[in-house]
Amino acid sequence: MSVADLTTSPVTSTYTKTSSRLHSPQLSLSSTRLSVHFSRSPRPNPRAQNFKITCSVNQVPSPVAVQTEEAKNKSECFGVFCQTYDLKAEEETKSWKKLINVAVSGAAGMISNHLLFKLASGEVFGPDQPIALKLLGSERSFQALEGVAMELEDSLYPLLREVSIGINPYEVFEEVEWALLIGAKPRGPGMERAGLLDINGQIFAEQGKALNAVASRNVKVIVVGNPCNTNALICLKNAPNIPAKNFHALTRLDENRAKCQLALKAGVFYDKVSNMTIWGNHSTTQVPDFLNARINGLPVKEVIKDHKWLEEEFTEKVQKRGGVLIQKWGRSSAASTAVSIADAMKSLVTPTPEGDWFSSGVYTNGNPYGIAQDIVFSMPCRSKGDGDYELVKDVTFDKYLLKRIAKSEAELLAEKRCVAHLTGEGVAFCDLPEDTMLPGEM
Amino acid sequence: MSVADLTTSPVTSTYTKTSSRLHSPQLSLSSTRLSVHFSRSPRPNPRAQNFKITCSVNQVPSPVAVQTEEAKNKSECFGVFCQTYDLKAEEETKSWKKLINVAVSGAAGMISNHLLFKLASGEVFGPDQPIALKLLGSERSFQALEGVAMELEDSLYPLLREVSIGINPYEVFEEVEWALLIGAKPRGPGMERAGLLDINGQIFAEQGKALNAVASRNVKVIVVGNPCNTNALICLKNAPNIPAKNFHALTRLDENRAKCQLALKAGVFYDKVSNMTIWGNHSTTQVPDFLNARINGLPVKEVIKDHKWLEEEFTEKVQKRGGVLIQKWGRSSAASTAVSIADAMKSLVTPTPEGDWFSSGVYTNGNPYGIAQDIVFSMPCRSKGDGDYELVKDVTFDKYLLKRIAKSEAELLAEKRCVAHLTGEGVAFCDLPEDTMLPGEM
Repeated sequence: MSVADLTTSPVTSTYTKTSSRLHSPQLSLSSTRLSVHFSRSPRPNPRAQNFKITCSVNQVPSPVAVQTEEAKNKSECFGVFCQTYDLKAEEETKSWKKLINVAVSGAAGMISNHLLFKLASGEVFGPDQPIALKLLGSERSFQALEGVAMELEDSLYPLLREVSIGINPYEVFEEVEWALLIGAKPRGPGMERAGLLDINGQIFAEQGKALNAVASRNVKVIVVGNPCNTNALICLKNAPNIPAKNFHALTRLDENRAKCQLALKAGVFYDKVSNMTIWGNHSTTQVPDFLNARINGLPVKEVIKDHKWLEEEFTEKVQKRGGVLIQKWGRSSAASTAVSIADAMKSLVTPTPEGDWFSSGVYTNGNPYGIAQDIVFSMPCRSKGDGDYELVKDVTFDKYLLKRIAKSEAELLAEKRCVAHLTGEGVAFCDLPEDTMLPGEM
Repeated sequence: MSVADLTTSPVTSTYTKTSSRLHSPQLSLSSTRLSVHFSRSPRPNPRAQNFKITCSVNQVPSPVAVQTEEAKNKSECFGVFCQTYDLKAEEETKSWKKLINVAVSGAAGMISNHLLFKLASGEVFGPDQPIALKLLGSERSFQALEGVAMELEDSLYPLLREVSIGINPYEVFEEVEWALLIGAKPRGPGMERAGLLDINGQIFAEQGKALNAVASRNVKVIVVGNPCNTNALICLKNAPNIPAKNFHALTRLDENRAKCQLALKAGVFYDKVSNMTIWGNHSTTQVPDFLNARINGLPVKEVIKDHKWLEEEFTEKVQKRGGVLIQKWGRSSAASTAVSIADAMKSLVTPTPEGDWFSSGVYTNGNPYGIAQDIVFSMPCRSKGDGDYELVKDVTFDKYLLKRIAKSEAELLAEKRCVAHLTGEGVAFCDLPEDTMLPGEM
């Protein structure tokens, strides 16, 4: 491919900070998609170009291409990733899948610092799946974003075909098939959960609007930033043109930790634990379900005879894990969180093993368990590996389990009332009874 | 597998802090192997047991098994990894390779925090290679080591069969097939390179002795802690019973960065750059070789016509990368360093692509380039994928390249004189001319 081929792809650097902000839709959902399109200089759809470059190529580009004030305001290819990967030449010898576009918010943070390299390595989507990473950061973190992009350059991942960085979600989310929403404001000193819900809710309302406006119509969204269930609800409410089913709140780290604690208690390796459900909110009201979980294919209660431990200590062990880690390690569990995000994604793109399931915080409409409609609740899911999932039907309940599920449900309904101003459902009313943030989380 | 099977594996917790220290060989090379063996309570070789457990299993183990003062002084299985992976059951359905033992020093640090998860995921050794990770830390970092091990537990990696943590290299290195020596003291304020050589040299002398005493006779050692070439030399000199050829100083991050900078300059994707040699020391005297490197199969000088840039700017761009990253990102490049360590390992366990090569700092005895004997020098290598390598013969030199190689060679000879007290070669004499630490490294 010659440089001449690239001239069909005009640079969009006519954007300025002001015009980008002015034209970005911030208010009306119905007009967002159009206004975004009209605010752009016309350019060919990069997909239609067989993955040709989406940004300018300078024959002698500088290693750090995005440094000017102007550039900060749009999502821009980074350094060596502004080069075209010569797909035609590759196609002669290898069979590549179609490029997949993945956006990651909070991209300059520690969780992303693990996750981005996992994604680039092919660990999630496999060794024949080229990937484009679109990093969303903030004005404050922009230099760190450049640093992350430089490290991705230096890693020479053959599957990583494009990296772009930006601070405007309407640019970064354009045509993404996956959005991993990790970035959120940490809780300040003395801040109540209600305050955190409001502050982060606004971020996720905005990102929902941006996804609605510019993302792939079937984008899969995984919300990690806390409080993640209600953030996911806010996000999906602000993205009415994307199926609500596509939004997930991450409870996979809780699931993984629960499996590990059951394995420890039973004296088996963790691969023997299956059918582990986390019900409810990613908070201290969450319910790690030992009634339906299995060890070596047997009900947990048949293997672990110490039922008092199951009822009184197990859940606490799972939930306190993050706090213990902070004590030990001095920082939060970025690496294992990134692993659990990768696990959550893999669970959607690979068929669930026969008879097993995984947990995800998903939209409750149509759930078979009698859980309140219109919230995001962690429930057992199965996938055919097509990115979609179905809820598992063959689970059993007892009074103890139902009571605890009801408590988490009540909390999520209260959180929902608390963010009504962000979901378009009127005036917020906050009556959150207690602080249910998980230890070690912010 | 039943609990009864495990009783054949007695716990080694009769070790105490004092006795372990007293019996650890610290002085004599010739006696180390024996004294280590005699200082142990007799126990069956874990290999001979078909990878049965190497430590005690409590039917109701605590999630954090290693917390007592006593336990800190030996390398001990951690938490869920004290459970037996039931290999026999697995063998009926899957074909696993023989467990591989990998030790990592500086295991509580940021580079390891990336690398350990890569190793556990199968990224380096492949999806059918079970792995045991042996984490070496310090008294100070012990709690952080526990934190890392907890995150590895929570990640539920099916290939990760054993994790042990410890602060005594004579315990941690026992029977390891790989030793990744990342831990080193950072340079204190005002410390000269000579001071750093001495302080870290002592660590690597001790670790060399420990490897010599207890590691697999064919252990592959990759030294990352700086100054890594001379640390690797010290290490191999203190491990006379391990082939000197098995010791590597990491220059792969330099190689990766050099490839990326050539790609940027040439306006191609980085996968088009091959045959990239880093010659010499991992310091500012290192020589990224643009004479032998190729872009799209052509000599670099035919593709990049700006020879002034190649001679005057290219090397600086490669070397300054770490410093720029620290500026941007606020910390050193842990993620891409971990990627480069994984790359270095993969280059030894997978056959080198036809016509290409990779760089590694290796022992110079018998090199075909006329480089001084008895130092560790980065040179072009090829591997059949058996863990071993051979030096590449078909490289060309010009005056410019030879002059720069000679400078790096002179520096390494000076460093060697500076650590003579650590290599058993008499009295040290330090005449290091200048500070050649790479920007952004410590």
